[in-house]
Amino acid sequence: MRITRRETFNAAHRLYRPDWDDMKNMEVFGKCSNPRWHGHNYVLFVTVEGSVDLQTGFVINLKELSRIIEEHVIQKLDHKNINLEVDFMQGKLASTENLAIGIWQQLEQPVTDAGGSLFCVKLIETENNFVEYFGS
Amino acid sequence: MRITRRETFNAAHRLYRPDWDDMKNMEVFGKCSNPRWHGHNYVLFVTVEGSVDLQTGFVINLKELSRIIEEHVIQKLDHKNINLEVDFMQGKLASTENLAIGIWQQLEQPVTDAGGSLFCVKLIETENNFVEYFGS
Amino acid sequence: MRITRRETFNAAHRLYRPDWDDMKNMEVFGKCSNPRWHGHNYVLFVTVEGSVDLQTGFVINLKELSRIIEEHVIQKLDHKNINLEVDFMQGKLASTENLAIGIWQQLEQPVTDAGGSLFCVKLIETENNFVEYFGS
Amino acid sequence: MRITRRETFNAAHRLYRPDWDDMKNMEVFGKCSNPRWHGHNYVLFVTVEGSVDLQTGFVINLKELSRIIEEHVIQKLDHKNINLEVDFMQGKLASTENLAIGIWQQLEQPVTDAGGSLFCVKLIETENNFVEYFGS
Amino acid sequence: MRITRRETFNAAHRLYRPDWDDMKNMEVFGKCSNPRWHGHNYVLFVTVEGSVDLQTGFVINLKELSRIIEEHVIQKLDHKNINLEVDFMQGKLASTENLAIGIWQQLEQPVTDAGGSLFCVKLIETENNFVEYFGS
Amino acid sequence: MRITRRETFNAAHRLYRPDWDDMKNMEVFGKCSNPRWHGHNYVLFVTVEGSVDLQTGFVINLKELSRIIEEHVIQKLDHKNINLEVDFMQGKLASTENLAIGIWQQLEQPVTDAGGSLFCVKLIETENNFVEYFGS
Repeated sequence: MRITRRETFNAAHRLYRPDWDDMKNMEVFGKCSNPRWHGHNYVLFVTVEGSVDLQTGFVINLKELSRIIEEHVIQKLDHKNINLEVDFMQGKLASTENLAIGIWQQLEQPVTDAGGSLFCVKLIETENNFVEYFGS
Repeated sequence: MRITRRETFNAAHRLYRPDWDDMKNMEVFGKCSNPRWHGHNYVLFVTVEGSVDLQTGFVINLKELSRIIEEHVIQKLDHKNINLEVDFMQGKLASTENLAIGIWQQLEQPVTDAGGSLFCVKLIETENNFVEYFGS
Repeated sequence: MRITRRETFNAAHRLYRPDWDDMKNMEVFGKCSNPRWHGHNYVLFVTVEGSVDLQTGFVINLKELSRIIEEHVIQKLDHKNINLEVDFMQGKLASTENLAIGIWQQLEQPVTDAGGSLFCVKLIETENNFVEYFGS
Repeated sequence: MRITRRETFNAAHRLYRPDWDDMKNMEVFGKCSNPRWHGHNYVLFVTVEGSVDLQTGFVINLKELSRIIEEHVIQKLDHKNINLEVDFMQGKLASTENLAIGIWQQLEQPVTDAGGSLFCVKLIETENNFVEYFGS
Repeated sequence: MRITRRETFNAAHRLYRPDWDDMKNMEVFGKCSNPRWHGHNYVLFVTVEGSVDLQTGFVINLKELSRIIEEHVIQKLDHKNINLEVDFMQGKLASTENLAIGIWQQLEQPVTDAGGSLFCVKLIETENNFVEYFGS
Repeated sequence: MRITRRETFNAAHRLYRPDWDDMKNMEVFGKCSNPRWHGHNYVLFVTVEGSVDLQTGFVINLKELSRIIEEHVIQKLDHKNINLEVDFMQGKLASTENLAIGIWQQLEQPVTDAGGSLFCVKLIETENNFVEYFGS
């Protein structure tokens, strides 16, 4: 059984490598490398896998899962600049893939502590693209 | 190859355990334990897995799959009280998880009889949460 | 200029008239008259009309509009039984139309007090039907 | 008869007044005033009103309307910083209201030149808020 | 008060004028003029305006409105070729605008007979374009 | 890690077998066998699986993936008749299942050439049904 909680955040970012010149960044990342930033309404789906607790009928209490995501992910990302302000993204390219991995790493331990098993982090960047990370 | 049919139903429910007092029910289930009920527009995705029939180009005929879901699930749940009126939920906590398991048990045999193999029951309770059950 | 805030709530209700017998209620309201209730994920769009404040660039501050809707509407409706528990629906048929009128009456004064002018209450009951009320 | 074309763009912005100090900006605009920017997937609906051309069956040719929006709006906004890079937003608060007015002013003349009459610019900032501008 | 019912249908069509040659049709209608047809999942929103009936709490009974739309519109359009098979579109360009006008003309009398007043026919052709017709 | 790109196309089709008579086709395929065609707004999700490139932060560059889908799938299907005009569907029943298999076969080699590994083709025919093909 898998249960999924949806959360949203809005953030600014850009795709670029400081060790590449502007022409190379533009060639690979296109307009996503704009040095003055752009941004997205990100939609995050966090899926926890497990058996159903006989007492509660829950895989995990969604109030608790929502609180964990809020504390460990949303407060760090919402209305932030992903490149400049998010501790777990420092030194990383701010691609959707790397952001999903970072979110996984933020959530894995607290979800485990709450008795759940993190199964998937799905991150929608635009209506036309999303990534799914399953941990390693 | 997997094929999925979407159906919807509207129902009332509450989350509570009769062997817990109100305070305990409120602590675990929050406002979802309101004794006077609340409800949802549930969205159900039923996925059948199989190979493509060479005669029809179908994994399963969706007209038949839709009829099965209508007869075994929607007629029992739509505009009903899940706690009080749904035979396959009697004696169970009316959580989304348990409801998805109950729906799986309703569908597994008739889908098999129709030559398909039930793969997943996905049940959306609100825009912010859903469960997926794959059968044990 | 019009600005709209979306909010959601989940509630139980039934459509029936106590002065009609069950057969008449069933004839007019169908399965929506089920005496053991059913429910919906309601989606509410509140639209305020006005000119843009030169200081803030806002027709109305959405934080304030959201707080007003939360206090006067969502807290009274979310996870409630519309027929039994909602003060402003007492003695009224719990149709989507009447609920939208009730929500308008809840919001009109506080929105005015916040310097705005309520333009429309749009209430979505299911993906297949919604109502819009413009006040009188 | 009204016809509407949907387009999308992603951009960064912040809400703030340079003549207010940080505390005042934070008080009024909250986290939207973050000096390091945040961003959105904006969704734009442009509505043109008119009679149906007997030759084409169109109010306006959507290929032409789409080209106008692309040239006058999307190229200026997509993957841009609204505060720093968009000519028609210079010196204005980057609120959704002001952005919708700016988009209207960009589109009014070219839509008229194409034989149409601009009726409404609807701009969705997040799933929870949008504005509609009807020109003056 | 306005109430809206959503219905869907799938149909094939093409945009072309028999009195224009292929080059002219292609110039104006582009790939929509493909002589071997293409098609859409149309989404139809029918809005009825009126006061709330004190007996029922309804502007119009949605069961009745749905039946009217089914009989007068959906049965004629669903899984049909709009150019070849739909009586009320004979001799007309199969544009979304003309289709919305045709649907209005199909619905106006039966909605009036049911005690309602047709306010708007909104017809979505793709996620990027739709029309709204208000009658005349 | 999986990354998904969404694309859309509109096409006409019908379900039928030339070796069955009309009655048999109607019995199995219902109104989908209408000889004058119907059509859909298809939504296509192409999922590529792989590890994250350390240089770019990408599993695959979405600009490249989008170009591949455009060239090998969309140009062949958009505004076309699937039965009559699509080379890779010749001689096949135009079911959603067969179309997804055909799309997979179009994409597998070019995605591999671009350094990716095709994981899933998901094809939505209507809001109520979709298929997923994983290759083989």
